[in-house]
Amino acid sequence: MLNAIDRLVVLLSKLPGIGKKSATRLAYHILDTDASYARVLAEQIACLHDSIKRCSECGSFTETDPCPICSDLGRDNSIICVVEKPQDVHVIEESHEFNGKFHVLGGLIAPLDGINPGDLSIGQLLYRVKRHNAREVILAVNPTLEGDTTALYLRQILKEADVEVSRLASGLPVGGDLEYTDRLTLSRSFRGRVKI
Amino acid sequence: MLNAIDRLVVLLSKLPGIGKKSATRLAYHILDTDASYARVLAEQIACLHDSIKRCSECGSFTETDPCPICSDLGRDNSIICVVEKPQDVHVIEESHEFNGKFHVLGGLIAPLDGINPGDLSIGQLLYRVKRHNAREVILAVNPTLEGDTTALYLRQILKEADVEVSRLASGLPVGGDLEYTDRLTLSRSFRGRVKI
Repeated sequence: MLNAIDRLVVLLSKLPGIGKKSATRLAYHILDTDASYARVLAEQIACLHDSIKRCSECGSFTETDPCPICSDLGRDNSIICVVEKPQDVHVIEESHEFNGKFHVLGGLIAPLDGINPGDLSIGQLLYRVKRHNAREVILAVNPTLEGDTTALYLRQILKEADVEVSRLASGLPVGGDLEYTDRLTLSRSFRGRVKI
Repeated sequence: MLNAIDRLVVLLSKLPGIGKKSATRLAYHILDTDASYARVLAEQIACLHDSIKRCSECGSFTETDPCPICSDLGRDNSIICVVEKPQDVHVIEESHEFNGKFHVLGGLIAPLDGINPGDLSIGQLLYRVKRHNAREVILAVNPTLEGDTTALYLRQILKEADVEVSRLASGLPVGGDLEYTDRLTLSRSFRGRVKI
């Protein structure tokens, strides 16, 4: 029969990147630390789904609707950055590189996985582009097959809205090494080379 | 102001081996998965400290006192395996290599960190060795400075109990490579070489 530690290990092992060994380490750590930490952690996990909802405007995770970014008057309404999932908003916000609005698609087009354009919030994107009279849509989707497909599809759809469509540059990562760069990335960095 | 995701990220970052990036990934994963998983995980973390106590016999973590290992009549009372912490019991049990009893010291002697013999459950070990008339004590402490110190100290203390004292072999790990083995490990594996 499983005891309370084993049961926690089973649950923690379901988290991404956490195998049985790490899960065991985490469980014992929680047990070793004082009980107040475990209580606060448990409360925070339990209340997560109740406190966080989707922003009705951009589709990102938020505690308030609309989210702090959508309701921020200091941000540029005329540039919309399109991302696959809410985590991507977080990553881009951390970089302090972008001061427009976001739009979360909720996935990428992947017919083999059964994800079609109809499953993504593309209609809402088109509606927002028109309503805000946006001048640019930046596609911040991953440089993968699904990302490429989605980017091509969105460019086609957005033609009717008379808006500039761009996509994040793909190429060598900063600090990366030519020697260890895969062929596709190298090929993209050649084709996308910039004058200096 | 931190929202519920950020607060969970802060808490998860305190776990060993979990940096801010992994914590963010875990938090978003918990949010993406259905709420029942979060509820069960939270409950399990919250009840951990209440369900698990120390075994009054061996000092390991357990739901029942004495623990299932101490109360198992099928296990050899006359061999006691001494470990630093409860996790070590778990690791050794997984290996199915040992069928005696355990004794958890609760640490290793480390004067620089302020851990002295009096802080460890050495008196209880001596008491158990005598009561069970143990014939062997296996010291399963790490091959580190603290482990070596503790092993030497215990060998000295256990002299009065007329019991054989052994220590886990130290040497090349299985699947390891001579070329990448550090000098100390290599030296130990030479001194501990066995006839074949």
